[in-house]
Amino acid sequence: MNFSSKILENAVQEVALLPGIGKRTALRLVLHLLDQPSERTTNLASALVDLKMKIKFCKECHNISDQPICEICADAKRDQSLICIVEDVRDVMAIENTQQFSGVYHVLGGKINPMEGIGPSDLTIDSLIHKVNSSEITELIFALSSTMEGDTTNYYIFKQIEKSSIKVSTIARGIAVGDELEYADQISLGRSILQRVPFENSLKN
Amino acid sequence: MNFSSKILENAVQEVALLPGIGKRTALRLVLHLLDQPSERTTNLASALVDLKMKIKFCKECHNISDQPICEICADAKRDQSLICIVEDVRDVMAIENTQQFSGVYHVLGGKINPMEGIGPSDLTIDSLIHKVNSSEITELIFALSSTMEGDTTNYYIFKQIEKSSIKVSTIARGIAVGDELEYADQISLGRSILQRVPFENSLKN
Ligand SMILES: [Zn+2]
Ligand SMILES: [Zn+2]
Repeated sequence: MNFSSKILENAVQEVALLPGIGKRTALRLVLHLLDQPSERTTNLASALVDLKMKIKFCKECHNISDQPICEICADAKRDQSLICIVEDVRDVMAIENTQQFSGVYHVLGGKINPMEGIGPSDLTIDSLIHKVNSSEITELIFALSSTMEGDTTNYYIFKQIEKSSIKVSTIARGIAVGDELEYADQISLGRSILQRVPFENSLKN
Repeated sequence: MNFSSKILENAVQEVALLPGIGKRTALRLVLHLLDQPSERTTNLASALVDLKMKIKFCKECHNISDQPICEICADAKRDQSLICIVEDVRDVMAIENTQQFSGVYHVLGGKINPMEGIGPSDLTIDSLIHKVNSSEITELIFALSSTMEGDTTNYYIFKQIEKSSIKVSTIARGIAVGDELEYADQISLGRSILQRVPFENSLKN
């Protein structure tokens, strides 16, 4: 691209560093901002800088929070002995949206991935083990994605807490509610059969 | 979405105001920035604010520029009597990339579009007419997109300069170089036939 302005070129290059945003899209976004009142740009810029500078990670669960302890961990109505282990804040948001979970979370910050150089010490696993050893935890629920990395991470954590008497479970996998069997993917359908539940239980929802 | 942090929610909302960026994409981009060194966010924020605060529009052609007169208008090798009328800076960049145009530009800043409330006075048409009346212009080339709005804008400008002796042309339209006829769109192919050129001319490229 042949820019008529270094300032424009610089803005486009910075925006194009974002994942999934090509140069053309970056130019479109930048020209849009140029067309808008200045407040749009200053609001966007300060929201991003605020996020980076002021955001906290909950001391208990490592979820993104405005306070040292997040709203979920600080909520007396949540069951602190039931911990759901997730990868990042998006998983917390997704599970919270279901309104089906009354425990608390532990946000790992990723999955063990040797190919990308992410080892156990890059995640919040030590903090989780410490929590298991020092507080009254009754159950851990693994809710990582069911990939090789997710399974590796689950297994690594499981090995470290094996000797404790804590119950360990993983979220159920199967075909989605309302899905037609004939269109379901084989692996999910296979899991649905293997992990079938007593019929009485299915009446609860 | 159920955010665990107002600061996070605010950043996502600001990013999601950009055209074509939904809330999910905004969250992904924002979490990416959170994961990166602080400089990434401050560089991005200051590039955007710089753009909005420091950018100039060339006094001659209204193109985006770092100087009061843009590099193209200031270039003594460019033919100042040949003006290509375009909608915005992207069109200038596209034509400059071809390296086939030695004149200068006039950036309208849009097209006449009554449905969106854009009239002639919202564009740089007055400045163009003034240029035509006060300088030695020999030819105007319309290079707006061939939509109803583009045609309306062309015609509006044409009516204003009709009495001058300036040559007015539009860029040629037709099927793209290398396109197979059978896959070409009808309108472009139709134009290619109507606006056929002497065979000798086609040998020039
Ligand atoms: Zn927390
Ligand atoms: Zn200029």
